[in-house]
Formats: sequence, C-alpha cells, structure tokens
Amino acid sequence: MKLLITGGGGFVGARLARTLLARPQLDGQAITQLVLTDIAPPPADLLADPRVQARTGTLLSQTPAISGEDFDGVFHLASAVSGECELDFELGLRSNLDSTRALLDALRARGAESGKVPKFVFSSSVAVFGPDASVPMPPRVADDTLPAPQTSYGTHKLMCEYLIADYTRKGYIDGRSARLMTVTVRPGRPNGAASSFFSGIIREPLAGVVSVCPVDPEVSHPMSSPSQTVDGLIKVYEATREQLGGRLALNLPGLNVRVADMLAALEEVAGPKVRALVRFERNEGIAGIVANWPTGSSAERAGKLGLKPYTQFAEIIREYIADCQAGPNAQDTLKGMQ
Amino acid sequence: MKLLITGGGGFVGARLARTLLARPQLDGQAITQLVLTDIAPPPADLLADPRVQARTGTLLSQTPAISGEDFDGVFHLASAVSGECELDFELGLRSNLDSTRALLDALRARGAESGKVPKFVFSSSVAVFGPDASVPMPPRVADDTLPAPQTSYGTHKLMCEYLIADYTRKGYIDGRSARLMTVTVRPGRPNGAASSFFSGIIREPLAGVVSVCPVDPEVSHPMSSPSQTVDGLIKVYEATREQLGGRLALNLPGLNVRVADMLAALEEVAGPKVRALVRFERNEGIAGIVANWPTGSSAERAGKLGLKPYTQFAEIIREYIADCQAGPNAQDTLKGMQ
Repeated sequence: MKLLITGGGGFVGARLARTLLARPQLDGQAITQLVLTDIAPPPADLLADPRVQARTGTLLSQTPAISGEDFDGVFHLASAVSGECELDFELGLRSNLDSTRALLDALRARGAESGKVPKFVFSSSVAVFGPDASVPMPPRVADDTLPAPQTSYGTHKLMCEYLIADYTRKGYIDGRSARLMTVTVRPGRPNGAASSFFSGIIREPLAGVVSVCPVDPEVSHPMSSPSQTVDGLIKVYEATREQLGGRLALNLPGLNVRVADMLAALEEVAGPKVRALVRFERNEGIAGIVANWPTGSSAERAGKLGLKPYTQFAEIIREYIADCQAGPNAQDTLKGMQ
Repeated sequence: MKLLITGGGGFVGARLARTLLARPQLDGQAITQLVLTDIAPPPADLLADPRVQARTGTLLSQTPAISGEDFDGVFHLASAVSGECELDFELGLRSNLDSTRALLDALRARGAESGKVPKFVFSSSVAVFGPDASVPMPPRVADDTLPAPQTSYGTHKLMCEYLIADYTRKGYIDGRSARLMTVTVRPGRPNGAASSFFSGIIREPLAGVVSVCPVDPEVSHPMSSPSQTVDGLIKVYEATREQLGGRLALNLPGLNVRVADMLAALEEVAGPKVRALVRFERNEGIAGIVANWPTGSSAERAGKLGLKPYTQFAEIIREYIADCQAGPNAQDTLKGMQ
C-alpha cells in the first residue's frame, strides 16, 4: 500500500513514520511506499528506508502532484502551530485551512478517476475547545462537548473536522479526525508554542538545565506521550466506520495532570536535585492563554478502540528517558541525571 | 451609513432591504447608501430608491471592489441552496465557503487601511443541526446543541460561523451568525429545495392550485415567517456584544409545528375547500431528507433580544395573505379564497 504523511518531517510525523515502517502491516496491508511531505526533510534514518520518498516544500505546492497519484491512506499532520497562527493570521489560513482543502480536493480529483476512496486521518487538536460566556467549558472536555475555539489554530482545526466529515459523507474519502492532546515530553529546544513549557519543565531539568514554569502549580491540562499519540493515530486509521460510531471527530486519550503532579513525578523518577531545577516565574501572557485551555479531557470513544491514557505522569517521563537513552545524545539530554 | 446586503436580490434579502429603507435608522444611524449584490438584480421598487445601488454577478467576482469601500455594516445572505449544493459539490464550496471567506478578507483588507470594524450579520441555518449515531439530536435543537450537519450546505454554514467568530475575535469585523429557521410561506413557484413543500402546501391551495405533500402529517419542523426572519436579522445586527453573550451564533425563533397543524390552520384561515386542495403522496427521497432535519428548535438567546416566534401557524398564513393583498397579483395568488 502507498501512504502519505503530511508533516512527515516533524516530531510526531517522523515518529509515526518510524512506527509504521517497523510494523508488518497497517490495516491488513504491507506498506510498500511511504511519501513524507514537509517544509523540511525528515530525519536521515527515514530517508535511508527504500520505501520512503521525501518531498520538501509547502503542502499547497505539493497538492497538484498528489492529485495524480493513488494513495491508499493519508495521515494529515502538516500544520502551522498555534502561536504562529496568532502572530500571522494569513499563515494560519493558508497552512491550516487552505492546505487541508487543497489536499482534500486533490484526493477527490484523483478518486474521480481511480474510483479509490483513501482512508484519511486528520490530526485535530484539543484546541477546538475553549471557554465561552454562554456555554461554560466542563472540567473535562468530552467527545461531544460543544467546541468553542479561542485561537485561529483551533478554529481552523475544527473547520477542517467538519469539512472532512462532509467529504466523507459524499464518499470522496474515508475520513476521521483525532483530536490530539498536548504531546509531552517533546525533545529538542523550547519553541514558540504557549504549551512549550509543559515539555520544558521536564526536558530541561533532565538535561541539567534550569527551566522556568510560567504558570501556577495548580494548572491542570490533558497530556499524552509521543508513543501514545502515534498509537492513537494508527488505531483511529484502522478503526472501521462502525467502530467510530457516526461522528468522525474524537478525542485521543489524555492524562489529566496538574503541573504540581508533573513535578512530583519528576522528583520520583529523577530525584530532588533535578526537580529543584524548575522555578516558578509567572508570565501573564502565557498564563492568560493557558487559562483558556481545557483543564482535562475524556476520551470515551477512543477508549472503545482500545486506547487508554497512562495513569501516572511518571510513565510519560520514563518513556522520554527511554527515548533519550536509545538516541545518540543521551549524555546531553539526560545530563541532569548523571 | 453605508450598508451591504449580499443576496440582496433574493426573497429574504429584498424584504430585508425594503424593511431597512423604511426605517428611520439602523443601530442609531440613518442609511444613506445600500449596496445590494446578487446574481440577479433586485426588484424594481428597490432599484427606484436613490439610496440603493445594485450590483449583479457572483459575490466572488465582487469582493475585489468591496475591498476598496468603507461599509458600516454587512448582512451576508448570499448562498446557494441546500439542494443545489448536494447536486454540485464545487458550487457549494464556491458559493457558500469561498465567497464568505473572500468577503471577510475584503473587509479585513479594507479595515487594515481605514481602521473601521464593520458589523457583520451572517445568515446561518437550522441545517447546521442533524442526527448523529453517537450524539442523538434533541427534539428541540438549542443554541448550544452540538451541530452535526448532514448536508454540504449545513457544513459550510457551520464552518462560516466559526470563521466569522475568529475574524471577530481578531477584531477584523464585529460578527454574529443568526441561524434561520425554515422561512414559510415563500411566494412564487416551488423550487428545488427539499423544504419547498412547506411553503407549497399553503401557497398553492390559497392560489386555488392542488399541492402534493411528500411527507407524513406528523412531520414536525421549526418555521418562521418572512417578517420575523427579517426582524431577527435586524435585532441580531443591533445587539451589542454583551447582549449576544459570548458565543456569536444563535438560533432565530421558530414555531415548532406539524404538517397536520399547518393544514388545520389553513382550514381555519381559508376554509375547508382550500384545505382540500392538499393531498398526501409520499416521496421517499424528500421524506428521507426531511427525516434528518430537526423536529423543533428553541431560541433562548434570541428571546433575550426580544425575538419571539408566532404561537400559531395561522398567524404565518395571515401574514402571507396580507403580503399577497398588498401586492399586484392578489387575484392570482389568492384565487383559492375567492
């Protein structure tokens, strides 16, 4: 089978690609070709796999070619992040709305010739939810909580969920939207996302570096590990329409955890010296954004697909440590633990 | 003030234009210029008003000009109807999604130069609601019922609601979306809409013509009269953001009525001979579509703006008869009552 991962050079996209290539099959079929599109090339290990074809450039520039190819399945992960979209409104529209529309239309155009209906998994986001003066947000946003996005990013994700549902209803694709929870612990450097600190307060201390937490320890949020997020995308891909049960967008599982719990888990796993590298210094800008985010989530329908969150944040930290130990830079990334 | 009505040549748009021109002011200001865009020109009485400027052509072809003008307010009514969009998927995307996006971007571009933030009322629809295997539709869809559109038309209306909320959050427009209930009694001929019979079973008998009802008498649906619909659009325009209370999309009031009640009201107003002109002949295609529509609605937030539905369907019929009597063709349109 021939698969496409948009955003295949990114952290989640590359991990998904690796996981898929290591499996004997997806949805009962062996993967013979895996096309990864992104604005930057994927990591070298993926480029070295003969089944992988990397294409670099914006998704919008690549959809004309995609309309001439038969894909059995698509994981659509390419996206500008929340903070970027707030700074550059047109970038958000182009990267998150127009690109999805162009991708859907490319698949529709091809399907009109080939008769094929590709499976299509869209990475939506917990950012579709938000507080609203007329409809308060529940403590745990559920599959059927009324969305009220408070960012352009969340707005476009939600619009794409509905667009994908309509293309699916018309039979152009077999679509489903998985709402990702905040993925923690992300490796690498802090980025511009307001949620960056959720990874930073674990990753930096483990590397022996001081980290500043910009919100109160009581702040709570649903988190998912990288491996659980990838598992969720794959399970949602493999689910039948009957298993999805009608509505095509669903929450992926998240562990609802307070910052205080995260730091207690850090101390449990890595000791008090590592924990002591985190200091609190409130940033009103970030704290204000985070105050609009869900404090927790539930994922009843994902649970029926066999997806469950970790029950302890320590498990998420241990997953990150194991990833670091398997990587080439463990001496640096885990310097704080030495 | 300078106003724009898109779809200003249509039935609701022209009636809105007439109502606005007859008022001393809108939102505290006199209307000095009223631009009506539509694919067909507006009725002659509107063209004769020196404040009216009619522009004919698709909305997409007109947005470049709009981006060079200062509008104080916009009523965005232009839309391809539900049935058309099901037959022609690209027409729906172009007319209902791309056109709204282009209009919003034209206003945003102009606002970036002028600093003006126009008020913007979007005519959304009860079609954003639908049944869903995982979330059953309540007997009365409310302002905060989770939408699940079952048509491209409803999908695009919902997407535009969220897009308008985001342009509003960013300060580009002062937007609000009013979900219209099914407008009854529409004058003229039957059209391609699946809802056409809701008007037809009243309009045709009053004109002395046989009408076929394609659904069971027990079918129930929320209805609104033309004047109530226009009043709703104006009240939503004049509402402050505080009065709207956060969420920007709200249901306009509807009278929840069964086909059987409609026909009883017809007999009450126009007599048994007129009522006898309606026969039942089930059309599985139409009945199947209508089975996916809401059986009723509530409009709590519109109620707080002072908007209330009629309490009897006879009032809707009497409004239609009065409209016919005021028009030039009453002899024909009310032939059944002679």
